[in-house]
Amino acid sequence: MPEVPESHADLLDAKFATLATVGPDGRPQMTEVWFLHDDGDLKISLNGSRQKTKNLRQNPAVSLLVLDLANPFRYLEVRGDATVVPDDDYAFADRVGAKYGADLRVHDGPGDHRVVVTIEPTRVHAVDMSG
Amino acid sequence: MPEVPESHADLLDAKFATLATVGPDGRPQMTEVWFLHDDGDLKISLNGSRQKTKNLRQNPAVSLLVLDLANPFRYLEVRGDATVVPDDDYAFADRVGAKYGADLRVHDGPGDHRVVVTIEPTRVHAVDMSG
Repeated sequence: MPEVPESHADLLDAKFATLATVGPDGRPQMTEVWFLHDDGDLKISLNGSRQKTKNLRQNPAVSLLVLDLANPFRYLEVRGDATVVPDDDYAFADRVGAKYGADLRVHDGPGDHRVVVTIEPTRVHAVDMSG
Repeated sequence: MPEVPESHADLLDAKFATLATVGPDGRPQMTEVWFLHDDGDLKISLNGSRQKTKNLRQNPAVSLLVLDLANPFRYLEVRGDATVVPDDDYAFADRVGAKYGADLRVHDGPGDHRVVVTIEPTRVHAVDMSG
């Protein structure tokens, strides 16, 4: 993520982000997600059965927005394409869980599986409308 | 907006929301916007020259997410289609400004114009992952 300016680098370690995908109806869909800034990449652990995961498998167009909750005039948006790979052993999910002090297994039902979504950025949009 | 459950009705009067549109490259784009809950509709005042406004003119697919900044596990997402109509005399922009104690003219350059974006909802998604 070389394009993230220093002024917004702290947001890469924030706790909440908004993920936007494009649904089968062509409309954007947003959900709040946990994410991990991992070795220069922005990665998300998703349950494979969720609509947002299905959307990304059909259409990799993606955007992630990290809002400064203490100053919502400041935010970072990363647009790009998503790659979706299996995380059957929860190796990545457990690394996300470690960031949040949580076990992601509790959100999954029997038969569910996890995937790792990695954003390949095409554009970074760093905004600060405050001050 | 009859579909918004009572548990999330307060978010209709929140100050910040995330607007998602689909860009010419087919990717979702997000920006933070001010909005007004007006007579049952969610409406936004946009500068007509901005990319998000161009996106909505080309493709009305839209989503608006209102996050509870004090409890980011709770949020309201409204998906639908946007109508874009001129607001040349700033009549609507001034009503938005009144909500925020601001004059939207200061964000516009000479020759810019304002539009009113109204969301025609197709789906309301009220989420609370807390507690």
